[in-house]
Amino acid sequence: MENEMSKSIGIMMNPKSVAIIGASPDPDKVGYSILKNYLDLKYKGKLYPINLKEDSILGLKAYKSILDVPEQVDTAVIAVPAPITPNVLDECGRAKVKSVVVVTAGYAEVGNSELEEKLVSTAKKYNLPVLGPNCVGVMDLRTGVDTLFLPSYKFDRPEAGSLGFVSQSGSVAGTILDLIGGESIGLSKFVSYGNASVIDETDILNYLADDDDTNVLIVYLEGAKKSKDFIDVAKRIGKKKPVIIAKGGATAAGSKAAHSHTASMAGNYQIYEAIFEQAGFIQSNDLDEMMGMAKMFDKQPLPTGNRVGLITNGGGTGVLATDSIYRNGLALADLTDSSKEYLRKVMPPIVNIRTPLDIGGDADYGRFNEAIKTVVNDDNVDIVAIIALFQTPGADSRVAQAIGNYAAVCKKPMIVISEGGSYTEMHKKIIEQSGIPVYSSPEMAAKVMAAAVKYAEFRKNSEN
Amino acid sequence: MENEMSKSIGIMMNPKSVAIIGASPDPDKVGYSILKNYLDLKYKGKLYPINLKEDSILGLKAYKSILDVPEQVDTAVIAVPAPITPNVLDECGRAKVKSVVVVTAGYAEVGNSELEEKLVSTAKKYNLPVLGPNCVGVMDLRTGVDTLFLPSYKFDRPEAGSLGFVSQSGSVAGTILDLIGGESIGLSKFVSYGNASVIDETDILNYLADDDDTNVLIVYLEGAKKSKDFIDVAKRIGKKKPVIIAKGGATAAGSKAAHSHTASMAGNYQIYEAIFEQAGFIQSNDLDEMMGMAKMFDKQPLPTGNRVGLITNGGGTGVLATDSIYRNGLALADLTDSSKEYLRKVMPPIVNIRTPLDIGGDADYGRFNEAIKTVVNDDNVDIVAIIALFQTPGADSRVAQAIGNYAAVCKKPMIVISEGGSYTEMHKKIIEQSGIPVYSSPEMAAKVMAAAVKYAEFRKNSEN
Repeated sequence: MENEMSKSIGIMMNPKSVAIIGASPDPDKVGYSILKNYLDLKYKGKLYPINLKEDSILGLKAYKSILDVPEQVDTAVIAVPAPITPNVLDECGRAKVKSVVVVTAGYAEVGNSELEEKLVSTAKKYNLPVLGPNCVGVMDLRTGVDTLFLPSYKFDRPEAGSLGFVSQSGSVAGTILDLIGGESIGLSKFVSYGNASVIDETDILNYLADDDDTNVLIVYLEGAKKSKDFIDVAKRIGKKKPVIIAKGGATAAGSKAAHSHTASMAGNYQIYEAIFEQAGFIQSNDLDEMMGMAKMFDKQPLPTGNRVGLITNGGGTGVLATDSIYRNGLALADLTDSSKEYLRKVMPPIVNIRTPLDIGGDADYGRFNEAIKTVVNDDNVDIVAIIALFQTPGADSRVAQAIGNYAAVCKKPMIVISEGGSYTEMHKKIIEQSGIPVYSSPEMAAKVMAAAVKYAEFRKNSEN
Repeated sequence: MENEMSKSIGIMMNPKSVAIIGASPDPDKVGYSILKNYLDLKYKGKLYPINLKEDSILGLKAYKSILDVPEQVDTAVIAVPAPITPNVLDECGRAKVKSVVVVTAGYAEVGNSELEEKLVSTAKKYNLPVLGPNCVGVMDLRTGVDTLFLPSYKFDRPEAGSLGFVSQSGSVAGTILDLIGGESIGLSKFVSYGNASVIDETDILNYLADDDDTNVLIVYLEGAKKSKDFIDVAKRIGKKKPVIIAKGGATAAGSKAAHSHTASMAGNYQIYEAIFEQAGFIQSNDLDEMMGMAKMFDKQPLPTGNRVGLITNGGGTGVLATDSIYRNGLALADLTDSSKEYLRKVMPPIVNIRTPLDIGGDADYGRFNEAIKTVVNDDNVDIVAIIALFQTPGADSRVAQAIGNYAAVCKKPMIVISEGGSYTEMHKKIIEQSGIPVYSSPEMAAKVMAAAVKYAEFRKNSEN
């Protein structure tokens, strides 16, 4: 449930004022990038750069200390060298700052536990909600909040949307945000939490469970600090929205690596797996797969069964997709007699009226349209899957549009499989803009559909 | 071993003359695309368009029949409607054409077995080597041969190289050729064979086993016609070069779909798996994965063991990669004492001297260079794997170049893991141009490294 810590994340996401301690006029410094982000995103609140030597930075008046700032600050972002962070945090406590993000690294993750304990005891002394240390912080594109110190030209910043993202790791966060930036999905809120020495994953998940902007959540976790609380929040959030999770440290060696990364006790993976399973979390080891899952859950309704109505304009790809469908516990739909009858009338004689419905390498938008219309309206179909290979003679932008037209009318989940080079990529974008996710490989598509079926069953059972 | 059929493929790849039966001046027609391909690729032999109505096509003199052509033709490409193909093939027999490609579809794969039998009996009558029907034919970019009737603007045509490709399916072929076109690998020879009614996969593999232009082979197979001959050629080729194979029809439903696709008896998958295993073939169900494997085997030496020297500039990605490495039967290398000693000297104190060697999110090209140099020269390392995340402050094109510089000097296999948006893609290209394959996901990279280790062991055992 909501507590002081999770409330503080709400403050970080929509603060009236932000102090950046360690703000710098040097473009190579972390404190420059952070200040620049808020300016670039047109953050509407007050910005206070804190720097011992400068009078103004990026056109804003700078202060020597947080104690000099003329108002109580909602969020302080600390980007100063590790050894002086406890002192700076003490000042934040005295200044009654409402929330703190420490992006600085060099604590327990490199064996410097003493420094981290000092940070924690200072936070406790003032009851300060602190995110980090050793993290890249928070992002909310609607309010103009972005503490990521990764140079903005190096990654494609996402647009605002409904996908929430929690990451213990800054590098995984950078990669995923970069990937989201290239996809047709948008971000609601992002939180990275590094060593989780004060605010931890449980607090963050509690906040995002109740956040109305977030429909789907992706999580990269190395280890949970408070296992009982984690189980409680996992159960609560899993019933409310789909959570796609990757657990770093699934193997003994990976667990050891996690310890020297975020000082996490990655623990016994089997236990985590059991918790995730019970909470209805969707597990994935691969960031590409996580993105694939996110696209499906963010944009498409949950399926009511596992019967896939598969249409293809490529025979071999249809065979591979059929294999993938059955390998992943799904089945091909057997179309109703009336569908078959209709298709026999409108398809050329070379088309076998069965699933996979191979409409031929010469299929144009008209033939695609007839096939999709029939499958979308067929009562034996739970999920509509369309293989559209744009290397073929008949496939062009009219095919992409014909598919996209069904996004608004189809009440069932729809996905597209399409793989290829630049011409194909162009058409995939057209389809994705309509809200239908496109996957390169039949195997990935089948995994995503299977995850949707599994989560739909979980939700149904948890409502009973 | 080489026979008349496999010799005929050699003729198709380097013919002195080509007749295109069904050549057309209409850009929407298959017979136009094929003729245009040969012209675009500056094919140096004689081209004979055959068309009942036209006097000339694309500036070339056209003939009414293959029997009117003034010389014996090396290859006839037949692109006329299915019902008249037996007659056209009979004329090819009378004209003593040396090899024939039938791209037309509409035979056994749609239940028209009678027509296919007629085609086969005509081929037998004249002892004609026929590729197809229901295929997209052959491609050799060095000689200017390309019978693919897929519109060339729709896919990125590959460059010439050393990767051979055999596909029973035209759609899978189109997709893979399109993917190769976007990768830094080149194609030696491509053969698609559809219904395999005369020339079959065994003939093609026999030809490519002895083809010096082909170092690595990727194969999409639905079913083998002659199982004993197939086993023989599989064993022979697996010992000579790496073969990456995807088998369509691995499940019962997929097998049924394969039958209505290329009239294949996809058969019992367990038997195929056993054959592939015995022949040292690398199996994959996913075209992305096949491409990933192809890049590794085409460009990198085989590893002498399974110990991975993993360098990373991202902690979380290092954890995920470690999990993937162990999940796929590989291990992290324990660096030698002298390597560790050296690294302690040159790395900043924040770097833990262990594998994964996390050189920090602020690592620049100098730090990358020191780390790579040490790992490349470490006797405990069999495979060098570098995670280079370009979203980080220190990573730029100098890092990509620093990595690329080792391509020429490193005697061990090297791979890079890098994932992200447009800035990352730009740098991946720089690295791949040096010959080092780059993978988006740690899981994919680990699968590829594990396949290389397995194939290296197979080769070692088969030499003993």
